[in-house]
Amino acid sequence: MTEPLYLEDIQVGRTFVSAKHELDAEQIKRFASEFDPQFFHTDEEAAKDSFFKGLAASGWHVAAVTMRLVVDMIPAGGGMIGASVEITWPQPTRPGDVLQVFSEVTEVRPSRSKPDRGIVTLRSETRNQKGEVLQVLTTKQLMFRRPA
Amino acid sequence: MTEPLYLEDIQVGRTFVSAKHELDAEQIKRFASEFDPQFFHTDEEAAKDSFFKGLAASGWHVAAVTMRLVVDMIPAGGGMIGASVEITWPQPTRPGDVLQVFSEVTEVRPSRSKPDRGIVTLRSETRNQKGEVLQVLTTKQLMFRRPA
Repeated sequence: MTEPLYLEDIQVGRTFVSAKHELDAEQIKRFASEFDPQFFHTDEEAAKDSFFKGLAASGWHVAAVTMRLVVDMIPAGGGMIGASVEITWPQPTRPGDVLQVFSEVTEVRPSRSKPDRGIVTLRSETRNQKGEVLQVLTTKQLMFRRPA
Repeated sequence: MTEPLYLEDIQVGRTFVSAKHELDAEQIKRFASEFDPQFFHTDEEAAKDSFFKGLAASGWHVAAVTMRLVVDMIPAGGGMIGASVEITWPQPTRPGDVLQVFSEVTEVRPSRSKPDRGIVTLRSETRNQKGEVLQVLTTKQLMFRRPA
């Protein structure tokens, strides 16, 4: 376990780079079977005749894997608690894509009423091994100050 | 399998109500172990001393279950393909919460360049059995017209 990070460790412009996670067809189909059972996420053959022209991961799967990579990358003391998020998926995520998250802090707003915390805005690109941007995620999340 | 829905079936103001899904502690911990391993999502005891004062589901889990309920509720012909989403989580989701999605179409914008499709904006509240709003999700998604 790495040292926890607190609000005072987070400055606008600070960047983070995550570990990598390879998504294969089995993971894509397993997640989609439970949470997004549309044919282009669950069936390679049928997917060929879809909008995606082949198997593609559910966007929610990309978001979930991104969260895992972010949690490991920013071990926030007291936890990182999402208040709101915006997501776009510029292009499909394919079996064999190796996901990696590149994040930048775009705003840090200490709470006026609760001095032990603040809201951090983080812009995170999830890219594959070719550098293609698969997802852009902007999150506003609660982080805590280092306990006295 | 119900009849597929197409763009022409979707009008501004049309509402949808999903089936229900009960989230228990086992599901919450299983999802979080894989995708959001923060202690307030994985450990009942430790969670008591957290922001959430008890075990809470990952927001990404709530989003994923919501997607499952929406896919079953709106069986879009050719699929429902997310372009962008916004999410807020007004309050935590607890073990035993029974999730149900209430959606309303807020905009339908036929594509000018591609006559076979359009973008539908859907505002979806995920509520529990007490009527508390756990998540508000606004999605812009591609839907197709009924094939000729």
